[in-house]
Amino acid sequence: MLIVYHHPFSPASRFVRLALHEYGVNFEAYLEFPWQRRRDFLLINPAGTVPVAVENDGTPVCGAGVIMEYLDETRGYMIPEKRLMPDNAERRAEVRRLVDWFLGKFDREVIGHFVREKVYKQEMPKSAGGGEPDSAALRAARTNIRHHMRYIGYLAASRRWLGGDKLSFADMAAAAELSCADYLGEVPWEEDEHAKAWYARVKSRPSFRSLLGETIPGMRPAPSYADLDF
Amino acid sequence: MLIVYHHPFSPASRFVRLALHEYGVNFEAYLEFPWQRRRDFLLINPAGTVPVAVENDGTPVCGAGVIMEYLDETRGYMIPEKRLMPDNAERRAEVRRLVDWFLGKFDREVIGHFVREKVYKQEMPKSAGGGEPDSAALRAARTNIRHHMRYIGYLAASRRWLGGDKLSFADMAAAAELSCADYLGEVPWEEDEHAKAWYARVKSRPSFRSLLGETIPGMRPAPSYADLDF
Repeated sequence: MLIVYHHPFSPASRFVRLALHEYGVNFEAYLEFPWQRRRDFLLINPAGTVPVAVENDGTPVCGAGVIMEYLDETRGYMIPEKRLMPDNAERRAEVRRLVDWFLGKFDREVIGHFVREKVYKQEMPKSAGGGEPDSAALRAARTNIRHHMRYIGYLAASRRWLGGDKLSFADMAAAAELSCADYLGEVPWEEDEHAKAWYARVKSRPSFRSLLGETIPGMRPAPSYADLDF
Repeated sequence: MLIVYHHPFSPASRFVRLALHEYGVNFEAYLEFPWQRRRDFLLINPAGTVPVAVENDGTPVCGAGVIMEYLDETRGYMIPEKRLMPDNAERRAEVRRLVDWFLGKFDREVIGHFVREKVYKQEMPKSAGGGEPDSAALRAARTNIRHHMRYIGYLAASRRWLGGDKLSFADMAAAAELSCADYLGEVPWEEDEHAKAWYARVKSRPSFRSLLGETIPGMRPAPSYADLDF
């Protein structure tokens, strides 16, 4: 059995859950609140971050990028048609660059701000940094997201999928991040029609369904969130 | 021909250069100042960061982790004895976790502060953020490095190398980061004897020689920097 420690609003956790669905892997999802710094969880991942995957009580596989490689190495060869990693080293490098871009840069400059200010800070106790959203951080994120939407649009317009000819981990990474902001009504879909059309294609995949059905207590998703014709 | 765009004080660039030496790959190193945001470089890597590798004018391979995978995928099978990646998926996950730890967390909490405050800010024009070091950032780094030294010491005491039985990318990542702080005289070697003994082993490798010979104009390395019996 594969266990995934995650938080429903951690974009990196969403990325891993989407990828596991795409690879047809059954898993049990355990909710973790990283800011609690739970002792038993720190023994599994000393960094204290989600996501973490543990298979059959083996070595913990920590972090979205590491889980991606593990998943593809242990399952990719069995499902060549559904694999989310290209079979050529240069094309893999491009997919990995974009996964880093979305889970790293896009998260730091945009989505991480939205999630921390509007979700985590509501769930955290004051002692762990909880409280009112920082309006300067939200403002920065709202400015930055427009550049990122245009980059996604540029990729979507020049390739079939973001990472190349085929659906790949790059699409999962971008869509996982965007889905968090979309729940919060923070995606300016009017900014780029190519980005919007690409997201509609990803959103309609079966792997997305379980994500779109989740809600957080006390916070309803934006009206367009689960709508496939947003 | 393989070209690497790098900065001599970018720990991630040092990691890539060390790894290329270990894999016996000839490459040409091009100096890049990321804060200049040079147009031709942004066309190669839109993130504007180093390191970037380009082989035979092919697709740019951007970022230390992505280059690591590319290097191992394209060369690892030819040098099973010298490979820096284990041949089992779980052990690879552990090596990748540590590479992320050192190039990510260790860099953010410690080494990145030293490099930015003491090197980059001296090289940058004021308009790009140059100027006097921020003493609060340096203080934070000096506190944090002690925890990290103990973690390195803990790994070194419980395993032959940081990532397991064999020398791996994890050792290169930790040593690349440490070497930057060591140049600046910022490593408290007395903190952990296991960490120190491990670093002495890595430092004596041929791959380290070219790094240890480099100096930056106007800033001499700490006396112990190139000394194998520090």
